[in-house]
Amino acid sequence: MTVHIGVIGTGMIGQDHIRRLTDVVTDASVVAVTDVDAECAKEVASGIGARALGTGREVIEDPRVDAVLVTSWGPTHAEYVLGAIEAGKYVFCEKPLATTAEDCLRIVDAEQAYGRRLVQVGFMRRYDAGYRAMKRVMDEGKIGAPLIMHCAHRNATVPETYHSEMATQDTVIHEIDTVRWLLDDEIVSSQVLTPRRTANRFEHLQDPQIMLFETAAGVRVDVEVFVNCQYGYDIQCETVGETGTVRLPDPPGIALRTAGAVRTGVLQDWKSRFTDAFDLEFVEWVTSVRDGRIAGPSAWDGYAASVISDATVEALHSGRIVPVAMKARPAFYT
Amino acid sequence: MTVHIGVIGTGMIGQDHIRRLTDVVTDASVVAVTDVDAECAKEVASGIGARALGTGREVIEDPRVDAVLVTSWGPTHAEYVLGAIEAGKYVFCEKPLATTAEDCLRIVDAEQAYGRRLVQVGFMRRYDAGYRAMKRVMDEGKIGAPLIMHCAHRNATVPETYHSEMATQDTVIHEIDTVRWLLDDEIVSSQVLTPRRTANRFEHLQDPQIMLFETAAGVRVDVEVFVNCQYGYDIQCETVGETGTVRLPDPPGIALRTAGAVRTGVLQDWKSRFTDAFDLEFVEWVTSVRDGRIAGPSAWDGYAASVISDATVEALHSGRIVPVAMKARPAFYT
Amino acid sequence: MTVHIGVIGTGMIGQDHIRRLTDVVTDASVVAVTDVDAECAKEVASGIGARALGTGREVIEDPRVDAVLVTSWGPTHAEYVLGAIEAGKYVFCEKPLATTAEDCLRIVDAEQAYGRRLVQVGFMRRYDAGYRAMKRVMDEGKIGAPLIMHCAHRNATVPETYHSEMATQDTVIHEIDTVRWLLDDEIVSSQVLTPRRTANRFEHLQDPQIMLFETAAGVRVDVEVFVNCQYGYDIQCETVGETGTVRLPDPPGIALRTAGAVRTGVLQDWKSRFTDAFDLEFVEWVTSVRDGRIAGPSAWDGYAASVISDATVEALHSGRIVPVAMKARPAFYT
Amino acid sequence: MTVHIGVIGTGMIGQDHIRRLTDVVTDASVVAVTDVDAECAKEVASGIGARALGTGREVIEDPRVDAVLVTSWGPTHAEYVLGAIEAGKYVFCEKPLATTAEDCLRIVDAEQAYGRRLVQVGFMRRYDAGYRAMKRVMDEGKIGAPLIMHCAHRNATVPETYHSEMATQDTVIHEIDTVRWLLDDEIVSSQVLTPRRTANRFEHLQDPQIMLFETAAGVRVDVEVFVNCQYGYDIQCETVGETGTVRLPDPPGIALRTAGAVRTGVLQDWKSRFTDAFDLEFVEWVTSVRDGRIAGPSAWDGYAASVISDATVEALHSGRIVPVAMKARPAFYT
Repeated sequence: MTVHIGVIGTGMIGQDHIRRLTDVVTDASVVAVTDVDAECAKEVASGIGARALGTGREVIEDPRVDAVLVTSWGPTHAEYVLGAIEAGKYVFCEKPLATTAEDCLRIVDAEQAYGRRLVQVGFMRRYDAGYRAMKRVMDEGKIGAPLIMHCAHRNATVPETYHSEMATQDTVIHEIDTVRWLLDDEIVSSQVLTPRRTANRFEHLQDPQIMLFETAAGVRVDVEVFVNCQYGYDIQCETVGETGTVRLPDPPGIALRTAGAVRTGVLQDWKSRFTDAFDLEFVEWVTSVRDGRIAGPSAWDGYAASVISDATVEALHSGRIVPVAMKARPAFYT
Repeated sequence: MTVHIGVIGTGMIGQDHIRRLTDVVTDASVVAVTDVDAECAKEVASGIGARALGTGREVIEDPRVDAVLVTSWGPTHAEYVLGAIEAGKYVFCEKPLATTAEDCLRIVDAEQAYGRRLVQVGFMRRYDAGYRAMKRVMDEGKIGAPLIMHCAHRNATVPETYHSEMATQDTVIHEIDTVRWLLDDEIVSSQVLTPRRTANRFEHLQDPQIMLFETAAGVRVDVEVFVNCQYGYDIQCETVGETGTVRLPDPPGIALRTAGAVRTGVLQDWKSRFTDAFDLEFVEWVTSVRDGRIAGPSAWDGYAASVISDATVEALHSGRIVPVAMKARPAFYT
Repeated sequence: MTVHIGVIGTGMIGQDHIRRLTDVVTDASVVAVTDVDAECAKEVASGIGARALGTGREVIEDPRVDAVLVTSWGPTHAEYVLGAIEAGKYVFCEKPLATTAEDCLRIVDAEQAYGRRLVQVGFMRRYDAGYRAMKRVMDEGKIGAPLIMHCAHRNATVPETYHSEMATQDTVIHEIDTVRWLLDDEIVSSQVLTPRRTANRFEHLQDPQIMLFETAAGVRVDVEVFVNCQYGYDIQCETVGETGTVRLPDPPGIALRTAGAVRTGVLQDWKSRFTDAFDLEFVEWVTSVRDGRIAGPSAWDGYAASVISDATVEALHSGRIVPVAMKARPAFYT
Repeated sequence: MTVHIGVIGTGMIGQDHIRRLTDVVTDASVVAVTDVDAECAKEVASGIGARALGTGREVIEDPRVDAVLVTSWGPTHAEYVLGAIEAGKYVFCEKPLATTAEDCLRIVDAEQAYGRRLVQVGFMRRYDAGYRAMKRVMDEGKIGAPLIMHCAHRNATVPETYHSEMATQDTVIHEIDTVRWLLDDEIVSSQVLTPRRTANRFEHLQDPQIMLFETAAGVRVDVEVFVNCQYGYDIQCETVGETGTVRLPDPPGIALRTAGAVRTGVLQDWKSRFTDAFDLEFVEWVTSVRDGRIAGPSAWDGYAASVISDATVEALHSGRIVPVAMKARPAFYT
């Protein structure tokens, strides 16, 4: 059985996921697309034999559409996700689930009212082989109870439109979800350190930053985020437990020995770093849609990331330790 | 456009490729299967909505079949590949192309008589990211002219049916193809060293062995093959050039620090080691079939591997350096 | 010319340094020793043909003693170092230089009054090949201006006498000096995070801890200290600069592939980790004494470490960010 | 007790060992030196307060000399070692022990006639921490019975005076000794493969070469020797056993991440690679001389290396597998 998918938003990430659903996921078919740029939508649609529709609402309501993929501009996410729930359709929403915690809560409430899970949020790191292996050994107790996590998230460069809050909202939001998922624990406070800024970038941008999280169980997490590190895209993660540590591997690469050094390349962007994770994310999502059992990152995970992100941005501005004001997790999401 | 594939042989590797063509390759569909075990064929067919046919010939001649996948018992390969050529259909044949050099030559001749490439042989290492990266830097001249290659091919264990000649015919045949492809050079002689045998295995089996190849350009290649190494499946490859060396990376794995050591897991079988390579092999093959331009390992590569394998087996038996008696490569294959 | 050394304190570290001065450093000779345990001093003295004296003062004033090594109980350091300065003799003092910043300052003042450097403090990491290589590439600008440092200091276990303040005073004091030296910068504030405690150790001990330092130039430093990590002695250090990062290597070890894993041993104690650094420290110190030009960690470095340590202990107790109340550095020490 | 040493040969390696005996080894003193270049000997002697004597014989017979270090030109080794034995003095001889197997045998016979061990040969790799760790795990049976060894010995460049036989006599002779010692086994045959030559070097020089050894127990050893590999000095060694493998570590180095790659330096010469091994070699030798119990590489090891080297040179010239014509090992040397 093929899952017919409607896509809202045919920008870069939308097109990448459409290619993925077309070329990589075998039992999915993109049947309808839309975009604020109608020309773009038409072009994308014609390339895959789908229909270009005028609005997100039309995509959601199209009877041929089994499930909706939301890859539009962030501020529109909430509306489309709520629309999909209203229509009783599965919906995969790229992060963020919504741009405010309030909107995330509305989605959480709507989904609970509907009575079963329809929403999945695009936290693809949960599908990365390295992170999964880390989670496995942690769950098996191989390093004892976790006490500390060290993370780093480095990009070679970002464009000038990138601002200091985006270090949390767009970048560290991945670590926020990963940490919660790896530890099966909740982040309860946030603090941001602001090191000397790199001279390689913009006046307006605090880069790098260090986020410090504390979890309910008392685990301390530090995340270095450095989005103009120049040398490449580099993701580091280490968990320190009572009896040992586990560390995410670097991507494999050939070792070249020439001219007095042995060297291995560092990847340059997140797409090549997480290609396999994105592929698996959609393979598993399509399978779960077909089987009627969504199991990936939930609307609650989207809400939690949003609240923690808000606290972190406040911590950046205030220089203080900011408690995370999260609602109690409903039984529906456990 | 979906490529309709008929599969001859639904044993372990056949089923694995059928799963791949069904679940991983988006524009392929397995429409007909056959096997000497008719019940097995029926079961496999019913699982994917294909038809179970009585013989390989019926599969080849089925008008719904665009391309044939041969994963039957080695001695039957030649007959089916020749049949496919006769029918003017693309055919992917798992290694070996045929069990004798003579049969390989008949295929090579038949394909040339047909007038364009129809045959691809299943040397999947050419699709492995690590080997491809090695080839790239070698082709770019980053290590200068290659002079030496060191290879190791280790399996945790093999069953008792495995005999000494299979170390070449089933195991090192992958290195034979890889070396020819990486170096873009031909193997001209073969020698086999027989170290002290491991006590962990069978009376009848010479394990490990060391194969020594010389190429037309004078490159020396040593291949350790050790199929009962106990600890895992481990593939090593290093090329030494005039100005540097390049080494195949180990598969990535989390580093666990506990109890006085840092440790990383070693894979246990070739399936997990080369999953991505197999996937890419079939993605690229199906695309090339659809586009009518086969570009993977050719019938000539299958023939060359067969002749070199024969020389190596003779070298094992004789203890001598055996020249490889290969025909001149026809222009058709360059 | 042989440098004749008098040793005050023949406990574990004292004996280790005596062995080093005797067996490793060629142009040094230990001629006099003392200890609160007179029997111990006698035994050590007789083993190396030195004289056991009754008090530290006698050692300092012994005309045969060219230079003094202070390896006694921390609270006695200041008295002996001041005594050596008074006697105009070179003195090597194991860390801490003194147990209070006030005493450190008295030493700094006395040395300045004397008019040239006599004091060296035992911060041996400055002699470690890995740290030295890090400093070299940082000084050469290979990673641009430093922005962040990540450090970890892990011990397998500590005895029950170890208390929470010692994590700073005895353990992280090494990182405090290393960071100041690597960055050629001053630490201006300190904060301590207290993760969930390991269950493997004592009720009274906060273990692990995370120290956060800020430098005058705005570099942010995080130091994980975990003295009951169980698995071994493990020192990690990474500097993140504007254009790259540099990381301290792990000690080399053979890679063993058995039973499904590749593993390398982790050292179990600081002695084996820093043997070469200790050796080089004393080789260079004895040379500098002979040449009359002390160049290693100074009394000022001892004072700075003491003040930063005090601020860090206060940060641990208060939970707050504590500014480091350091005097201005006299020209004498630049 | 200081061991007084007389040095015959004050060339590069002689001076390096004199520095070592003076600056690193605490209980040794070089009291007499000689060299064919009398001026050189005088200069070296005056630098360390030793006496420059006219001939090697004078050094050996000098009553102040407890032990002799032979670092003269290879063809003179035998005469001096025999002279030292005759004088009943300990003698450390840099490799080779002698330039012919016959001369080695004369030394072996003379030492046996004298009645106890006086001779040690300079195979310093036995003192390298990595090789020692390999030997430990092999002796402990951690990898089961050894079956295969893979070695590589690469130098950045050699001078034009280096000729093809020196690849064995000067370079691989270290691997010959290391293999015998690691395996506690004897090499019984030798074969040499001659890959395509590097274009970076001399017309007269076969570079690289591959030596293939077989041991009495049936272990197969391959040694790549490549003395103009351009990129650095690189020593590789791996033993494959019945249940696992063990590999020599690369020297540690900082990892630098810049400009799209992570890189670690490769050492450029054998001196920096084996500094610690040379130091330990002389520390242990001087101790063993003082204690009257020589335990390092013996005259027999020197003889064995010589015979195996001869067979290997013959194998290079003949292109054949050459059996090693070694005498039976006398009980004296077991």
